[in-house]
Amino acid sequence: MSEHSFTIDSSSPINPHSQRLAHIRQQILSLFLNDSEFVETILGTADEHARLSDTELHTKTKTVKELLTDLHAADLADMLEALPYDERLALWHLIDNHQRGEVLVEASVSVWDSLIKDMSDKELLRAVASLHVDEQAYIAEHLPRDTMRRLLTYLEPSLRNRIRTVLQYPGDSIGQMMDFEFVTVRSNVSLKTVQRFLRYRSNIPEATDKIFVIDSSNILQGELPLTTILTQSPDKLVSEVMKTEPVTFLPDEKGEDAAGAFERYDLISAAVVDNNGRLLGRLTVEDIVDNLNEESEENIRRMGGLSPEEDVFAPVGQAVRNRWAWLAINLCTAFVASRVIGVFEDTISQLVALATLMPIVAGIGGNTGNQTITMIVRALALHQIQKGSFSFLLLRELGVAFINGVVWGGIMGVVTYLLYGDMAMGAVMTLAMVLNLLMAAMMGVLIPLTMIKLGRDPALGASVMITAITDTGGFFIFLGLATLFLV
Amino acid sequence: MSEHSFTIDSSSPINPHSQRLAHIRQQILSLFLNDSEFVETILGTADEHARLSDTELHTKTKTVKELLTDLHAADLADMLEALPYDERLALWHLIDNHQRGEVLVEASVSVWDSLIKDMSDKELLRAVASLHVDEQAYIAEHLPRDTMRRLLTYLEPSLRNRIRTVLQYPGDSIGQMMDFEFVTVRSNVSLKTVQRFLRYRSNIPEATDKIFVIDSSNILQGELPLTTILTQSPDKLVSEVMKTEPVTFLPDEKGEDAAGAFERYDLISAAVVDNNGRLLGRLTVEDIVDNLNEESEENIRRMGGLSPEEDVFAPVGQAVRNRWAWLAINLCTAFVASRVIGVFEDTISQLVALATLMPIVAGIGGNTGNQTITMIVRALALHQIQKGSFSFLLLRELGVAFINGVVWGGIMGVVTYLLYGDMAMGAVMTLAMVLNLLMAAMMGVLIPLTMIKLGRDPALGASVMITAITDTGGFFIFLGLATLFLV
Repeated sequence: MSEHSFTIDSSSPINPHSQRLAHIRQQILSLFLNDSEFVETILGTADEHARLSDTELHTKTKTVKELLTDLHAADLADMLEALPYDERLALWHLIDNHQRGEVLVEASVSVWDSLIKDMSDKELLRAVASLHVDEQAYIAEHLPRDTMRRLLTYLEPSLRNRIRTVLQYPGDSIGQMMDFEFVTVRSNVSLKTVQRFLRYRSNIPEATDKIFVIDSSNILQGELPLTTILTQSPDKLVSEVMKTEPVTFLPDEKGEDAAGAFERYDLISAAVVDNNGRLLGRLTVEDIVDNLNEESEENIRRMGGLSPEEDVFAPVGQAVRNRWAWLAINLCTAFVASRVIGVFEDTISQLVALATLMPIVAGIGGNTGNQTITMIVRALALHQIQKGSFSFLLLRELGVAFINGVVWGGIMGVVTYLLYGDMAMGAVMTLAMVLNLLMAAMMGVLIPLTMIKLGRDPALGASVMITAITDTGGFFIFLGLATLFLV
Repeated sequence: MSEHSFTIDSSSPINPHSQRLAHIRQQILSLFLNDSEFVETILGTADEHARLSDTELHTKTKTVKELLTDLHAADLADMLEALPYDERLALWHLIDNHQRGEVLVEASVSVWDSLIKDMSDKELLRAVASLHVDEQAYIAEHLPRDTMRRLLTYLEPSLRNRIRTVLQYPGDSIGQMMDFEFVTVRSNVSLKTVQRFLRYRSNIPEATDKIFVIDSSNILQGELPLTTILTQSPDKLVSEVMKTEPVTFLPDEKGEDAAGAFERYDLISAAVVDNNGRLLGRLTVEDIVDNLNEESEENIRRMGGLSPEEDVFAPVGQAVRNRWAWLAINLCTAFVASRVIGVFEDTISQLVALATLMPIVAGIGGNTGNQTITMIVRALALHQIQKGSFSFLLLRELGVAFINGVVWGGIMGVVTYLLYGDMAMGAVMTLAMVLNLLMAAMMGVLIPLTMIKLGRDPALGASVMITAITDTGGFFIFLGLATLFLV
């Protein structure tokens, strides 16, 4: 392990570029983490005797600013996310305002609050002024509603209208991901003219692998890849070499659908058009990569019952608020399971071994149920489940559960017999495990499919729900069987 | 819900392209899912009286093949993954052999077995013959070892050596992701010459946004974006306009690090060089998107204790094998937790209410522990945790746990008092919940950090481990306190 950071494997990066970056990053982070006087002086919260002198402050600030010059906005965002609140805010103070907009775009929304809380509207406006419209819209959308409204009034009308247009589409839609940085040409010009036009323009937007061919009413006619311009004869007309029927998207479509199409067709950029085929904007693979990262993040958090917005350095109060809902739900389900046991207190008091054994039945059911539900939820998200294959899946899961129940339930039955010398108790143990595994498998298939039929997200709280059912069901089955056959 | 598929939201795709695709997909899938005679005739497993006549078979086959012509390899792969084994194999039989290689590349490795099991080496070889080297290497790497060896002997020596080179790098390294499809030029030529060369070449590889500038010993000098060729004066030399010091990668670096850099610097393609700066290959954003999708898939499965390779339509036997390890581990931990209860059987027999209440203490600990560990594992993966911030995180989690313990434990203490009329039992309940939540939070932070210090993947089985500890610990704390204060 290196001195200042935990890294997942022991091999340090050998790429000189990433090595240098890691080094700068380390220097800056350790400066802020180990020098509370510096941090407090910047924030103006230092005690009189712990405050740095102006010269010291100036020297240290200069060191940091020199280190910062080489860093990309994304690197700055990463560093901010890796610092606790005070240290983060101190570093933020040292970042030039004209770069702050980009850093905000790159940083996770969960850390925004901690950054912009003491920026004035003017500062915020200046910070976002240099951004692209889609980035400005992205920031506007995630700001507190009143801050956003104030900011919009400061903008010039044409820009304000564009941002309003973008904001009218739902949050995870293509309309909010698209940008307006693209090049268009007409189909009746030659490639030579296109080249002259491009040279005159001199600046082609990033991630441009093609330019869009439109007619006089802005309707998309086709696409002209840059490689076509470079490889085809300059005398040919755009209409002769352009790709007609390109893959396009509508602004109402979901971002994740676009991600699928980009992966499938190996796209770098694609046009966004309205229902009449009019060119509205452009989607690039960069937007898709950002979207994929966000999605994967959210999926992981959602299944475990974590709020998607929690900042790893959120203070205690905020963390409590973020998590209390799932904890309350969990407490309720645990309470219900406990009441099921309560019903059988008579049985337990006659045979206290049951109290010892019952968590095994419940636990193994939870494990099986979670395996099944994880698989089904993923398969649903990937559209792998058709109605015709539903019964196969249910039967397969029941089959797996039955075999596991007989094998592991059988083993636990023998262990129970060896521990307590009671053959009937061993048999009840085996039977209870088989039944609870069957129930876990069945519910693991039925819960996500039912959620979808109800129009709900099947991943949300799936794990909490299945565990609640297998616990309650496990206790009921085991203690119920014991009551019937053992006492 | 539509007739044949479950979709996550009720709005059908409005994009005409995806609509047509979804329709074709639906037609093919339902044909295979609802016509077992067709499937069995193709596979040669039909009973004599259930076999289709040659004419019927011919007509249906023709229908399917016509539907298939419009589909991309990725679409075919998706459909194969969405079909149970027999139906999948039947569809596979109808896919042209020259397209099968691409379909294999696009399909998840978990379904390969079911597809290639009755292909001959010759067929397999023909299927992969038209693929790029990186794709062939990818396929070779995931084939059973003996099939791979036989296949390699069939290839021509130069290709065999290239594939061997790629295979020598570890599985998730950049060396295995890179391709060899790139264009190179020398720095001392003019842009006009470059354009003439490109026009002569006529074919520029996909995802080319730049060409690489190398010297006579193949050392990378810089990069020349296509947009530069298009916007700069044709008389300029490559050396005048090329981008020096580009972001490059080494073949030993991990794929996920490349993903980070691609996202950070908005790359479309990048050079892979050896330690001396010699150009080895190229990495494209397409490889990165594939890699991101695989990663996110694996993360989700890994935390839940599912094998990363499970095919949703795996038959019972295979599914049992895939899952038995986690089930066995779970059974062991449940058994240990159960033995802890066993130690307190005397206490429980005197106060049977304890058996009823103990799952609440254990359950709430598991929930808190899972929230903490999920957050820490994700933050570690994103390199957000530095040594200097470690104590902050531990204290924060303990603080959150303490507040939640006092609030929810207090509520459960009151409920316990109301249920059993025993004030001391309520107090024990509250105290046990506070202590178990504190332990859950502490272990949720310490387990992943310890795993990393031991050089292990912190995500692997994190959820199983924390649940085992909070169960065992929860039972011990609650029953221990009860033994001390209640009986």
